[in-house]
Amino acid sequence: MRVLLVTLLFLSISISVFGQTNILVLQSDFGLKDGAVAAMKGVAMKVSKQIIIHDLTHDIPPYDIWAAAYRLDQSASFWPRGTVFVSVVDPGVGSSRKPVVMKSKSGHYFVTPDNGTLTLVAEHLGVESVRVIDEHLNRLPGSESSYTFHGRDLFAYTAARLCAGEISFEKVGPLLSDGPHMLKYQKPLEERGVIYGSIDILDVQYGNVWTNIPSALLEKAGVRTGDTLQVEITEGDSVRYKEVVLYGNTFSDVQKHEVIAYLNSLLNFSMAINQGDFARAKRIGSGPAWKIRVKRQE
Amino acid sequence: MRVLLVTLLFLSISISVFGQTNILVLQSDFGLKDGAVAAMKGVAMKVSKQIIIHDLTHDIPPYDIWAAAYRLDQSASFWPRGTVFVSVVDPGVGSSRKPVVMKSKSGHYFVTPDNGTLTLVAEHLGVESVRVIDEHLNRLPGSESSYTFHGRDLFAYTAARLCAGEISFEKVGPLLSDGPHMLKYQKPLEERGVIYGSIDILDVQYGNVWTNIPSALLEKAGVRTGDTLQVEITEGDSVRYKEVVLYGNTFSDVQKHEVIAYLNSLLNFSMAINQGDFARAKRIGSGPAWKIRVKRQE
Amino acid sequence: MRVLLVTLLFLSISISVFGQTNILVLQSDFGLKDGAVAAMKGVAMKVSKQIIIHDLTHDIPPYDIWAAAYRLDQSASFWPRGTVFVSVVDPGVGSSRKPVVMKSKSGHYFVTPDNGTLTLVAEHLGVESVRVIDEHLNRLPGSESSYTFHGRDLFAYTAARLCAGEISFEKVGPLLSDGPHMLKYQKPLEERGVIYGSIDILDVQYGNVWTNIPSALLEKAGVRTGDTLQVEITEGDSVRYKEVVLYGNTFSDVQKHEVIAYLNSLLNFSMAINQGDFARAKRIGSGPAWKIRVKRQE
Repeated sequence: MRVLLVTLLFLSISISVFGQTNILVLQSDFGLKDGAVAAMKGVAMKVSKQIIIHDLTHDIPPYDIWAAAYRLDQSASFWPRGTVFVSVVDPGVGSSRKPVVMKSKSGHYFVTPDNGTLTLVAEHLGVESVRVIDEHLNRLPGSESSYTFHGRDLFAYTAARLCAGEISFEKVGPLLSDGPHMLKYQKPLEERGVIYGSIDILDVQYGNVWTNIPSALLEKAGVRTGDTLQVEITEGDSVRYKEVVLYGNTFSDVQKHEVIAYLNSLLNFSMAINQGDFARAKRIGSGPAWKIRVKRQE
Repeated sequence: MRVLLVTLLFLSISISVFGQTNILVLQSDFGLKDGAVAAMKGVAMKVSKQIIIHDLTHDIPPYDIWAAAYRLDQSASFWPRGTVFVSVVDPGVGSSRKPVVMKSKSGHYFVTPDNGTLTLVAEHLGVESVRVIDEHLNRLPGSESSYTFHGRDLFAYTAARLCAGEISFEKVGPLLSDGPHMLKYQKPLEERGVIYGSIDILDVQYGNVWTNIPSALLEKAGVRTGDTLQVEITEGDSVRYKEVVLYGNTFSDVQKHEVIAYLNSLLNFSMAINQGDFARAKRIGSGPAWKIRVKRQE
Repeated sequence: MRVLLVTLLFLSISISVFGQTNILVLQSDFGLKDGAVAAMKGVAMKVSKQIIIHDLTHDIPPYDIWAAAYRLDQSASFWPRGTVFVSVVDPGVGSSRKPVVMKSKSGHYFVTPDNGTLTLVAEHLGVESVRVIDEHLNRLPGSESSYTFHGRDLFAYTAARLCAGEISFEKVGPLLSDGPHMLKYQKPLEERGVIYGSIDILDVQYGNVWTNIPSALLEKAGVRTGDTLQVEITEGDSVRYKEVVLYGNTFSDVQKHEVIAYLNSLLNFSMAINQGDFARAKRIGSGPAWKIRVKRQE
């Protein structure tokens, strides 16, 4: 009897303290003006009220797979192991892109159409394995005659069941042997003191320009904060920006409305105007077509 | 002693596992730029930290009761039984519209001014009963001298107390015998192979046009995916769109920038441009004034 | 043995019922289009999955410290004691503004750069004490080489640890003896029946104008609902609006598109157009430069 009591007691403690299921983080290009995201959350809550749901963003520019890949990469590593991310940004909704779940080496799960969304997290967090969602086993019951809202019926439902421990990763479906679909993009490199890279994304709220050049590459080229740099930005074959700027620690290292080069929160080379909008002022865009060249001013 | 222990133990287990209160889902036309929605959530958290709060949307177009009714209807059924929805979209804030709680036959609760917001959920989920909120019993203590923020002081507070089990549905207030206030709108119908309906709403993020014509009506008229259809859209007495289009399963059934007719996630007849904005391109609106006629091309 | 069992049992009950940690409420000018806010939430979830996270708003106009101060003040008191607010709106990111935590007399915590953001909550909730965050003790491990995202590495991390009980308020860092930095602004006053104040903020969703004149001052000047009032709004030395308006209880006291003066949800004197946008129609702004004068029409 006492043994039973103690067992039940520890069971009770462990359920209340450790029985917490995992976190579900949602990303899409659906916006928040209609009920689409709310329906996804409702489906997850029907699976289990224990699931902790958060949003990454639902304002990915429509159909912009690169931006989806980038936003996942920007924040995934800050979340606990076991967090399940859903990302639904897909120009080919319902097309032949396979619905997959990737488990990263960092212990995070990513539920998404396999259209390139996984490119950056696969590179940076490492791929443990990828499974194709078996739609016969992992589809919201009653949704079979709907063709267009995979985000709710397939992705959110499968993610929630994985999150709540209703299915194991193995029960998602068969392994995808050739890994996730990877987008091609210009990687950063250093040659004789000149650093080459591309503009990953615009920091939309402020108009800052974020490149894919890591701090390590700047150090390798001998660039230190306080240096002045020659920066050239090209779109395709056209030069769009060419100036000498300060490489500082913080925006307040330059005057209001002056340009500064700095490391962003991902420790990548970035450009901004202190209390201004660099991208708009200099008409700079982002994506594979936008390249940048940086060199220390001697 | 042992009996007491076991009793306490099961109590403990049941509190930790089943003691979870219900979910509160908020909708409004307040936007998220100020502190109004946050104050509603704070009021709910003061009632009980156990309440799970989610947003439906706070971007209902200002004062658009039809849109509020539509968004509720679009997502309510995906949430668990017992979920309490609050919807505050009301051109007549503080006017004679009664504050009510409707319990649907599906077991969901809807807390709202009774101005037509309940029209569609009442029709689709069924009305178990409607109660008028008794403001003497169910108003945030200390808020009596405030006349304008019913969303926080009356609706959020009452909903949170219902959600947390502080009051039962019966304690909301007296029954409203004549049910919720219902908006009039054009219902879908089929006559000799021609289907008539109206444009419920625009899928704002993508510019798709969603009608109130269900898949069953299309089937009744012999319409199958792969068919080509004659579609005519009118605003009042004016024809705004008249073309022959493909009725497909997925957007990728047509080329980029081509029009497609399809079933949306609610299984209603809808129209889109693959990777484009149908509503903007064709200048189509929504609401009771916008009607649609669909016929299979022989 | 029984004593042990009973002790463990109550421990279990108390963990499951009372072991709930506090609430974390986030505010910023980051917007929700990128992964910045999500990274802050991830950091908090890594500290403890028990933390209940909500947003105040992330749409504070960029660098607008007054708006940040105002939004905090608008909603903080509606949240339970112990709630931890993070507000990151700071034109001088990385500059010499001290990172602080203020505990208010109302038992709320505010984690923010000490740049004036605390002005209104300090005045209205009272200051118990302010501590400077010790960056050596309270910084996200591994973030030392990042210079620009204090919101995540310092503010969210410290707030989450405080929220989860990982650190006590005393462990935040040393006391700041001279209290929070206070912004100067025009306070409301009444002189011979004339009431002077300033326009605190625009109710952005609807274009209503909210002043800092409390209902008590109106009562002192003998103003009652139903009265007609002379209202004059100036920007600097220029008169921008001068009309006679009704002081009503609810918007429906006037016709559609008519101006009404009323008490907002904070019980402050406000102006609106019923189902319209007063600020846009009359070109009225907000902030210290915008003053208002109200007098009862005899």
